[in-house]
Amino acid sequence: MKEEESGGGRKQGAGPPCAACKLLRRRCPRDCVFAPHFPANDPQKFATVHRVFGASNVNKLLQELPEHTRGDAVISMVYEANARLRDPVYGCVGVISSLQQQVGALQNQVALAQAEVVHMRLRQTLAAAPSSSRGLVASSLSRDINHSQCYYYMDMEEPLWS
Amino acid sequence: MKEEESGGGRKQGAGPPCAACKLLRRRCPRDCVFAPHFPANDPQKFATVHRVFGASNVNKLLQELPEHTRGDAVISMVYEANARLRDPVYGCVGVISSLQQQVGALQNQVALAQAEVVHMRLRQTLAAAPSSSRGLVASSLSRDINHSQCYYYMDMEEPLWS
Repeated sequence: MKEEESGGGRKQGAGPPCAACKLLRRRCPRDCVFAPHFPANDPQKFATVHRVFGASNVNKLLQELPEHTRGDAVISMVYEANARLRDPVYGCVGVISSLQQQVGALQNQVALAQAEVVHMRLRQTLAAAPSSSRGLVASSLSRDINHSQCYYYMDMEEPLWS
Repeated sequence: MKEEESGGGRKQGAGPPCAACKLLRRRCPRDCVFAPHFPANDPQKFATVHRVFGASNVNKLLQELPEHTRGDAVISMVYEANARLRDPVYGCVGVISSLQQQVGALQNQVALAQAEVVHMRLRQTLAAAPSSSRGLVASSLSRDINHSQCYYYMDMEEPLWS
């Protein structure tokens, strides 16, 4: 505290301490790993990640990353920490689970709509085809319907909660 | 360490210390908040959440939750911690971003497939309608197409990264 009051918040008088150093009550060095991402005018941002991950873990994670990726890492940690404070049981994973359900429901809708398209084409083609070749046309289009339905179930991710 | 070696891992000799107490080298009390979720035979599970959130934060979060929700909270924290170790920049948020893109792409596919269904119906109806009423039928079905396209863009979530 004394350092801040005497204007020594940053080594070599580079400005006020960043939000992280202020909260941790420590000297904010010129090469502070937090300073570029946690400005003094937004104390809540650091308080949130500190509460969920702990300052030491945030520091370690940022130190281990190349500088050009640290901005995105901070955004993702702030998002994750806010999600955990909003929903302490599921956090971000609740959002993932809900999106996975949405993907599943949409894959069903796509399969149904595409099957309907194929079915309507079948009917149109059958109506236009001479009666002698209708069996062949129907069997070919029926294969298309089955293929279209399988395709949209193929790459569904494993749900987090069943 | 001495406590464990002398069989004092749990107060009143209730068994070996849980994975958390073993890693933290502390006595594992009978009412240990970690013990039901971090069994001794799976040390990696606690090591993972400890590395990302810190034992103290995990402890605090579990203490603040009703007991019946703690199991799900541990599952979600382990998932989140593993995601962060696998992808230190984006963690869980990378999964969310990718699912949001998948939802957007599927919403487009549904809209296109449904528009195609409406379009085919329009053509079928026009083909069957007497020539005097074709303008009316076409305008009514065209409204259906627009409605179907708008509907699937309505509830898209805000993307995390643009």
